[in-house]
Order: sequence, then structure tokens, then C-alpha cells
Amino acid sequence: MANLSVDHLLGIKELNKEDIQLIFETTDHFKEVINRPIKKVPSLRDITIANIFFENSTRTKLSFELAEKRLSADVVNFSSSNSSVKKGETLLDTVNNILSMKVDMVVMRHASPGAAHFLSRNIKANIINAGDGTHEHPTQALLDSYSIREKLGSLSGKKIAIIGDILHSRVALSNIYALQKSGAEVMVCGPNTLLPKYIKELGVEVSLDVREALEWCDVANILRIQLERQQLKYFPSLREYSLYYGINKKLLDSIGKEIVVMHPGPINRGVEISSDVADSKHSIILNQVENGVAVRMAVLYLLAQKKLN
Amino acid sequence: MANLSVDHLLGIKELNKEDIQLIFETTDHFKEVINRPIKKVPSLRDITIANIFFENSTRTKLSFELAEKRLSADVVNFSSSNSSVKKGETLLDTVNNILSMKVDMVVMRHASPGAAHFLSRNIKANIINAGDGTHEHPTQALLDSYSIREKLGSLSGKKIAIIGDILHSRVALSNIYALQKSGAEVMVCGPNTLLPKYIKELGVEVSLDVREALEWCDVANILRIQLERQQLKYFPSLREYSLYYGINKKLLDSIGKEIVVMHPGPINRGVEISSDVADSKHSIILNQVENGVAVRMAVLYLLAQKKLN
Amino acid sequence: MANLSVDHLLGIKELNKEDIQLIFETTDHFKEVINRPIKKVPSLRDITIANIFFENSTRTKLSFELAEKRLSADVVNFSSSNSSVKKGETLLDTVNNILSMKVDMVVMRHASPGAAHFLSRNIKANIINAGDGTHEHPTQALLDSYSIREKLGSLSGKKIAIIGDILHSRVALSNIYALQKSGAEVMVCGPNTLLPKYIKELGVEVSLDVREALEWCDVANILRIQLERQQLKYFPSLREYSLYYGINKKLLDSIGKEIVVMHPGPINRGVEISSDVADSKHSIILNQVENGVAVRMAVLYLLAQKKLN
Repeated sequence: MANLSVDHLLGIKELNKEDIQLIFETTDHFKEVINRPIKKVPSLRDITIANIFFENSTRTKLSFELAEKRLSADVVNFSSSNSSVKKGETLLDTVNNILSMKVDMVVMRHASPGAAHFLSRNIKANIINAGDGTHEHPTQALLDSYSIREKLGSLSGKKIAIIGDILHSRVALSNIYALQKSGAEVMVCGPNTLLPKYIKELGVEVSLDVREALEWCDVANILRIQLERQQLKYFPSLREYSLYYGINKKLLDSIGKEIVVMHPGPINRGVEISSDVADSKHSIILNQVENGVAVRMAVLYLLAQKKLN
Repeated sequence: MANLSVDHLLGIKELNKEDIQLIFETTDHFKEVINRPIKKVPSLRDITIANIFFENSTRTKLSFELAEKRLSADVVNFSSSNSSVKKGETLLDTVNNILSMKVDMVVMRHASPGAAHFLSRNIKANIINAGDGTHEHPTQALLDSYSIREKLGSLSGKKIAIIGDILHSRVALSNIYALQKSGAEVMVCGPNTLLPKYIKELGVEVSLDVREALEWCDVANILRIQLERQQLKYFPSLREYSLYYGINKKLLDSIGKEIVVMHPGPINRGVEISSDVADSKHSIILNQVENGVAVRMAVLYLLAQKKLN
Repeated sequence: MANLSVDHLLGIKELNKEDIQLIFETTDHFKEVINRPIKKVPSLRDITIANIFFENSTRTKLSFELAEKRLSADVVNFSSSNSSVKKGETLLDTVNNILSMKVDMVVMRHASPGAAHFLSRNIKANIINAGDGTHEHPTQALLDSYSIREKLGSLSGKKIAIIGDILHSRVALSNIYALQKSGAEVMVCGPNTLLPKYIKELGVEVSLDVREALEWCDVANILRIQLERQQLKYFPSLREYSLYYGINKKLLDSIGKEIVVMHPGPINRGVEISSDVADSKHSIILNQVENGVAVRMAVLYLLAQKKLN
């Protein structure tokens, strides 16, 4: 049976086109499973998975936990708020300890870019990056791309605009990699202060004008304004942001074509997206959430086949 | 098979007499189950339940979680302390997201009266109100009434005095509804500043004198002084409260008849109730806790039969 | 079948030599189990265990939780951060409530010495002390002694030096009891300000000189400097401590014999132990963690046979 070219899911950068294709096909299967009356399969019954979250998270952690439980894995949760990290222990010691308890897979969110890579080089377990600082968030990108493929039939040749705070978003970078590897074209759009300097090197279109981005694209992936990450001095005020970059129904109607609307959540209604867009028939926001569980089941299932020694 | 007249347990107000009767009979069954050596039944094996607590809780959350696990449901926990609520997301978005992960039932505690009702109108899952502000706490009322029925054989014609902070208590209102619908008579007793203005409209006796209430009643349900909810200026001091409304053995002995003593917990020993009462043979406080798990199993089991589309 | 002489694991002090021997033999069995591909056994399928942690803990809580899940017990977790303890409830009321929910065993960590003993006298469930203040931490001592027995074949006649902050360590006292009951000799070593006054009464050797301790011992159990417990005025500075009592490779090499190195974790690298020692082939630190799960499975399994009425 075909399998992934990697032992860990550290980022989309490390995946090839066939990996992504395999994850999508496996997701198709699990999506069918979770829409059955009986949603549980025994696939990972012998596997213990540790969810290690050094940053708070609701939806990502819950989505992984549901995916793991539906695969019948044994799950242990660890979050920094009740951790020995505060007692001065190193990241490697913390995780080594957890692994000495015979954990097979680790799902980790950490504030430092590269934390998941560091672990994978030092530890004998399959690592899944659930977000490392502003670097990558690969399962989010996979579920985003999967949701577009589901809605439009394919990603090849489709035009996706990623709109908002590109600079502080781990979702943006992972999405760019996933979309490009799947044959889609990508434009990023946002105020200059929220675009990273290296953005042109990624081979994407860049626009400062949200109308231009909307006219260009088939799909608008609207990112969350991450208030908690921003240095306010460099930032347009929320009011200015909403005025120049917020997506509302009036703006969408004026474009004169149908655009699929996405958002990784949590939504700031009235800031980057209005309620009449978020709740409209063009929005696939809740489909993204639903697909998140299926995509994560697929990733866990595929990596569990790659036992490490 | 008979079933509830409702799809959700939002409050006792929405239940009819037959609903309460059905819940009690189902509780009888589950109470027998949890006293077996093997306490687990497979009834909810295909059901995923999300426990969403926007306010802290120990006993209620633990009681629901045990009830769910003994019914073999899959359980995910969500509490506001590690939530995206702090990131500015609306209640509806938070819960919609959780539901897109294919959760079948939601047990929710929230600080705002009506939060559970709001959800039930917007969401396709069975909602169980685990406390909405100072409004209702229906499973507590059901377990209280069930415990009286268990102790005295029936509720019909029995006299129950609810003593203490009626104003800030969600337990009081739900208890009044449940007791009246089951044919019991209710008196509330407390200092004037802790009685709501609308109390007479509820068809209950009112007394400011705890001795009068005790002489009247068969059962005294002693509420907790909820220090965290009170505005101190309207309130007798703890010392005054304890002096005029605290229930101790000497006071009970002076009444000259046996009174069943209840308390929803957590107890402030020496404030609203003394240790020689809480730990006496008249106290059914720990029976209430035990019955709580069985009542919640019954409610979950009955609502799970009412699948929504 | 032989069983323990006690109904609870409150401390090593209450165990006799045969108890410890039985726990070790049972651990041998479970260690074999957790190294199988399928790590789960159905032994405690009818048992509900409450993990009640009034103090933060990562590794101990996780280790117990894994042990419980691998024995197929139903597990509920309770930690003080989301508890009614803050609402003024007594310890006994909190735990009585949890027990009225029909919990069979309680694993408890508490800041007060004697908390576990207090509970065991008042409650009908098997109590396992997971640390009571600076008093005892019996499962840590059992896993430490088991790890030495595993490494050296036996404890009888072996010389173990416990080095560091003896005064504030619950690990030290439990270790001294466990080692002496198993026939080992014990020396404690640390600065005068970190040795308790009653230490000589325990029948151990005492040294203020770490080189002397290392030359004497077969095994060095290096304790964590518990910064959060110390009153700084009595304490050598971290720099001084590290200089006079820190264990590094150069020091160990100068001793001229092989010493087994242990540490209960979490490690402060560069303070009480250097990385070249912690990660060396003499270190059994990660074996201790692995054995912790097996030892706890053994304790839970043996106590579950001792049903209380």
C-alpha cells in the first residue's frame, strides 16, 4: 500500500504532491466514516497519542482529540498551564519523559518556530505539528485545501486569495505551500505592515487592494486578525482594518461573480468578516471545521503505519 | 415507548408532570445499574457529548462526565479557561464549531440566563442546561426531587422549605417548578434582601423566620450562601446570617419532629449548616450526590432517543 | 494469592518487606505488558478511579493516568484549579462528594502532610498518596527502588546516596524507608541548611561532602532543587549549590568507579546535574519514568483486590 514519504507531519513544505493526494483520498474515506451513525473505527486501538499544547487552543485540540478517539487511540492530554515547563525543565526533557511512558505519537503546539522539527530529530515517535509559532500549521492547510477541492472538484488551476494578517499567520504559509503543490494559484492580500518581507520569494501574487484580490480569485480565505500577536504601533486600527479589508456582503455583491468564502476561525464578526458573509451560502466555514476532524484522522492513520525504531 | 415532550432539557419550566415522572422511573433503573459491580451500559455508544462549561464547576461537571462514561458515550470537555471565547468569538460560533465536529449532545453551563435556550434555537443537537446564570439548573432540581421521593416514597402533598439565598440561586427556581409539578407544597425562607421581588407570583409560601419554616416543613433544602455572587451591601454579614438562618442540631431538636435535611453543596460548614446537621442521620446530602449521576444518566438516555435533523 | 498488608498506599512507612517484594514482582509482570504491541489489559474494567490533584503535577499525574487507562479503569480527573475547594468546602466534603458518585479508588496529591491518612480514616475507597506536602511520595520511592533492583539485580547490601535538598523533598523520606526495608544502605548528602534536624534518627549515613558520598555509593539519586519550596535566606545560591553539589562528568570521572545516576525529575540541567551526566550511559533517569507506569499499574492492581465496605 502507498504511504507518506515522511515519518512526521512537521510542515507542508516537507510533503510532496503525492503525499497531499494520499491524505486527501484517505480523508474522503474518513469523512464517510464520521457521517455514519457509528463514527468509531478500531484502526489505532494499540496506539497511545499525547496531545501536548504549550499554547492555548480550543478548536485544534478538540478536533485532534475527536479524531484520535474516533480512531480508538488512547489519548493523554498535556497543556502548559499544568506543566513542569514552569519548573525550568527543557522542552526535550519534558517530551522525553512523556515518551518514556511509551507514547507512540505526539501532537504538539508550541510558540517557537521549529519546535516540532527539533523534537522529531531527538525523539522516537511520530510528531505532528499542530502549530509552531508563526511558522506552519499543516493540518489547517490540509483541511483548507481539502475543503476547496470538495467544493470546486479540484485545486488545479484554481485561484485562491489569502486575505488579512499574513505576517503573523502560520495558516498563511502552510496554505501557500499546500495550494501550490496541488496546482492552485495563490495571491496574498493585506496592508503592507501585515505582509512579510520575503513574501515575493514564495511565488505568490501580492495585492494591497482587497477589491483587486476578490476580482482575481475563485476562493477567498479570510484570515483572523490575531489581536494577541500584534504590535499595535505597526498596525492599522481595527476600525481602519475593517474599513479597508473587511469583507461584507455589499462588497462581495459588487464583484459580480460567486466567490467561495473561507475562514480558519475563530471569527471576529464585524472586523475581518461580516455576519452576512460568514453565514451566507458562499461560506464553507463550518465545512472546514467538519473536514478538520476527517483530515486529522487521515494524517494520524497514515503516520501510524510508519512505526519508528 | 413513552418519551419526553421536549428535545432539550433547558429548564424545569418546559417539562410537564409526565416528563418528570418518566425521568424518575428511568432514574430508578440507572440507580440500580450504578450499584451493580459493573456500572457501565452500552446505551450511548454511538453518541458524542460535549461538556461546555463557561463557568467553573466541580461536582456538576464530574457528575455529568461520570453519567456519560457509564452510558459509554464519547466525551469531549471544553472549558472557558482554555477557550477561544477569550479571543472574541461569539457563543454561537464557538458552539457551531464544536457541532461541525459532529457532536450529538451539548451539556452547557453559562453565566447568562437564557444561554441554553438561545443555543437550542440555533443548533441541531440536544442541549442540556447545566446552569444558566441565576436562572435554572434543571438536573439539580430533578435530583433533589428524586431524592425526596426516594426518602419519603412520594412528593405528593409533601411540604418542602427552601432556605437561604433564593435571589442568587438557580437551584431555587428550578426546585420550585419541579416540586410544584410533582404535587408538593413549597415555602421559601430567607432574609428579605435575598428573596426576589417576584417570589409571590410563583405560588409559594414565604417566610422570613427560619423556625416558622422548619415547623411547617417535612424537608428543609438548605441553600449555599454563594459568597461569589453577592453584593455585600445588601447582605446580612455571614455572622448575622449564621445566627438568624444557620441550621444547627439544637435548632432542629427544638422543633419536635423529624425533618429531612438537604443541601446542593458545596457546604459552608458553620455558615448555613452546622456539621452536626450535615453529618446527621436526617441528612440526605450524600444521597443527593449519588442520585445526581443516576438522574443525569436518565436525562441523557431519554434525550438521546430524540434525534434532531 | 498473596496480597498487600494494607488497604491503602499512604506511605512506604506502613509497608512491610513482603509488600514491597510483592509490588516489585507484580511490576515485573506489568513491565512486560507495557512493552507488548498491545499494552492494555482488562484488569480494572469495573473500577472507577478519581485522580485528585490539589497541587500541579505533570509527570506523576500523567503516569497514573496512563497506568489506569492501560488497566482499562474508568478515569475522572479533578484538579484544584477548577474546584469548589476555592468556594470554602472542606477537603473531606470535596472527596465525600466525589465518592458518592461511586468512585472506587482515589489517587491524591495534596500540599498538607497527612492529607492522605486523614482521608483513608474517613472514606470507603482505596487511597493512593501521590505526594502529601514534604512528607511521603510512595510510588516515586517504589519506582526508584525498582529501577535500582532492575539495574543491579537486587537492593540487598547496595549503597545508595541521596544527594540534594533532603529537607523539602517528599521523595527523600519515602526513598529512605523503601531502601532500608529492601536491605540497602542509605547516605544522605547536602548542605546543612537542606538537611532536616531529625535525619540521624532515620538510621542513615550523613555527609556534607558530595565527593565523599560519591566515593561511598553504588547509586547516586540526585534530587531536584525545588526552587518553589525554598526559603531563600537559608539556602546557598543556585550558583553556590551547583559549584559544591552539582554532579558533572568531570566529578564522576574523578571517582574512579561506575556509579548509577538517578533523578526523579524534572531536571534542572546545569544546576544539580549536568547534561553530560543526565544523558550518559550511567543514567537510568528515563528508565525510572518508564518503570513509573508499571509500578503504578502494580499498586493499583493490588489495591483493587482489597475491596472496602
